[in-house]
Amino acid sequence: MEQGKSIQTEDERAMRAALDEAYLAKEAGEVPIGAVVVYQGRIVGRGRNRVEQLQDPTAHAEILAITAATENLGAKYLTDCTLYVSLEPCVMCMGALRWAQVSRIVYATSDPKAGYHVLAPKAPHPRAVIEVGPFGDEAAGLLRSFFSERR
Amino acid sequence: MEQGKSIQTEDERAMRAALDEAYLAKEAGEVPIGAVVVYQGRIVGRGRNRVEQLQDPTAHAEILAITAATENLGAKYLTDCTLYVSLEPCVMCMGALRWAQVSRIVYATSDPKAGYHVLAPKAPHPRAVIEVGPFGDEAAGLLRSFFSERR
Repeated sequence: MEQGKSIQTEDERAMRAALDEAYLAKEAGEVPIGAVVVYQGRIVGRGRNRVEQLQDPTAHAEILAITAATENLGAKYLTDCTLYVSLEPCVMCMGALRWAQVSRIVYATSDPKAGYHVLAPKAPHPRAVIEVGPFGDEAAGLLRSFFSERR
Repeated sequence: MEQGKSIQTEDERAMRAALDEAYLAKEAGEVPIGAVVVYQGRIVGRGRNRVEQLQDPTAHAEILAITAATENLGAKYLTDCTLYVSLEPCVMCMGALRWAQVSRIVYATSDPKAGYHVLAPKAPHPRAVIEVGPFGDEAAGLLRSFFSERR
């Protein structure tokens, strides 16, 4: 998945940053999921899964990225922001994205087990745009290899 | 709503503590919602709405109570715990309660606008018991008076 010198789109650059967070999570022994919040082309919040490290079931990548972004921007709404995350958000995180009014959500690979669309398809903010973005195979492979190594 | 010297049930004592948190939230200018987590008859986590204070849309009473309880107990699951909250949990908080595997959830008054049952009736953990508890009128009145004073 070497990008080499190819020109990346903004979505690719941002999702690459989310994947960087996912790799850091994996190194820390966490389920490898990462997220970033982008505002006006700039990353304003980063988060990676820290559930084990913090022993906190709410410490998902998206929650930490949202909290970092609101702190960074000094605003409780992220209305003109895009959240990039390596895995489809769960119910909790989609609820958080709704409260934060994040206007665009891009995820790399879907989560047929715990993704929001299974348990709460009506959870997203009605004005939110949700898209499947780049690097889906890499994000899925990273999760697959993590779980197969743990078995 | 003076309790006087009447004997309180465990649910009443715990919900009273959740309401105490809600009153503290109100004093701080927050939407008055409070929560506590009880394990073996003991309050192991407290939380009140701090969205404005922290400018963090994820700083709901339940999230903070869950995080406090997991930190206090040193465990990421709250399997044998009950969460008491003055208002029906939203989608985000119900998702968090699912991840934390909180086995019993008691709320004082329902939230027909943003409660989980409207947007995500399938969000709760399949083994979770969810009940409407005591002091519903007081919890609803507290919210009503907060919003009418702000208008």
